[in-house]
Amino acid sequence: MGQDTTSSDPSTGKLDFMFSGMTGGDGENSDAQNSTWQARMVAMTLPKLFEDIKSMSLTDRDQVFRIADLGCSSGPNTIRNVEAVIEQVRARYKEAEVDTSSGPEIQVYFQDLPNTDFNTLIKFLFSQPRSDEEKVQKYMSAAVPGSFYDRLFPKSTINIALSTFALHWLSEIPAAVRDKASPAYNGGNTQIKRSSLATKEAFAEQAKRDLDRFLAARAHEIGPGGLLFMIFLIRPDEQSGRL
Amino acid sequence: MGQDTTSSDPSTGKLDFMFSGMTGGDGENSDAQNSTWQARMVAMTLPKLFEDIKSMSLTDRDQVFRIADLGCSSGPNTIRNVEAVIEQVRARYKEAEVDTSSGPEIQVYFQDLPNTDFNTLIKFLFSQPRSDEEKVQKYMSAAVPGSFYDRLFPKSTINIALSTFALHWLSEIPAAVRDKASPAYNGGNTQIKRSSLATKEAFAEQAKRDLDRFLAARAHEIGPGGLLFMIFLIRPDEQSGRL
Repeated sequence: MGQDTTSSDPSTGKLDFMFSGMTGGDGENSDAQNSTWQARMVAMTLPKLFEDIKSMSLTDRDQVFRIADLGCSSGPNTIRNVEAVIEQVRARYKEAEVDTSSGPEIQVYFQDLPNTDFNTLIKFLFSQPRSDEEKVQKYMSAAVPGSFYDRLFPKSTINIALSTFALHWLSEIPAAVRDKASPAYNGGNTQIKRSSLATKEAFAEQAKRDLDRFLAARAHEIGPGGLLFMIFLIRPDEQSGRL
Repeated sequence: MGQDTTSSDPSTGKLDFMFSGMTGGDGENSDAQNSTWQARMVAMTLPKLFEDIKSMSLTDRDQVFRIADLGCSSGPNTIRNVEAVIEQVRARYKEAEVDTSSGPEIQVYFQDLPNTDFNTLIKFLFSQPRSDEEKVQKYMSAAVPGSFYDRLFPKSTINIALSTFALHWLSEIPAAVRDKASPAYNGGNTQIKRSSLATKEAFAEQAKRDLDRFLAARAHEIGPGGLLFMIFLIRPDEQSGRL
């Protein structure tokens, strides 16, 4: 298992990749020994996004700045991540000397599936210590129910979209994996560690289709010069072992 | 008790008022005998908004259209009202022959206080019969937690804001009403039917301050040519009996 950290480079449109190893079981580098490894991975990789924010081009017309956290879940992590991003965005506005009356108006979309516990997310959002609230200043928030494999926002309205540890949730179990007559049938299991190559390939194809849909939707929604920051799990190639 | 239905006239900026009587107790016109009177009032008055939508000016630049229901609560009424509005908006786009690839991209903000049960609202939103969903076509939705007496949306981004039977919820109980030393002190009660004139006046002043704050916030948020539609309860003047 490895982590794939990607951020777009606004000047070249090139995708940057960073890799970091993480193993199964309960050894030194295992998930079990790293219960907070997701948070640590985000802390390690967000500075890459911050670098890109520093070179974002902003003009006096950019009075509104929109950030979307895709697959935000209902915990406090999404709020912490988004507020760290907001701090950088405000610094960038200051540095770029954009003419706003009191900084940009920042709107944050917290997005996840419709069955997400948004009530809990909103409780976290409004129960933060006053000092933290002041630190990031006020921003406008909205909970967005839906699938990030579909369109979620009007076209060209998002400045920064981020998604951390959510893109491994596929849109569906591949049809072949559910089909008893298919060589990819997985016996009704979700685990694929000991499954046939056909099963693994069916999941790999589903993941590819889903990622294409995700990127196509975001391509509509992220405006010119906007940033897309993704951290997601990948599997090494079954035969070559390469990432 | 009376209902005050207001909608702005986009051509003149003038406010239109409609009145309709409703009495207390459990008589013919009472709330008790009209458990669905709120829904009926909305059905009676929405056509006034629809008329204004028919004359909204739309250009090819209006690819995104945003509707906000302020104080939406978590029931299905808000969805029904908003979808009735969406139907009219789509008809207006068609009539105005706006050049969109597949109609406007419509984003709906469902707004209410942070302790609102947004999970239930979202469940209603995603559990509608397929035929209804097709009828209004797809729209993008977001739940917005906050107070409508504060700023909720970025400036000039709302095309239609509506608020039905929510503006009687004041931002707070007036300080004088809570102050035991004040002539407006209400003995810890919320009912004001038998309260002193001082108490009633304190509430009236609070209502005025709150409505001013509501309108000031919306003035920032509603874009040029946008519409504001409000249905809210008012009390006749204590002495003159006038509305």
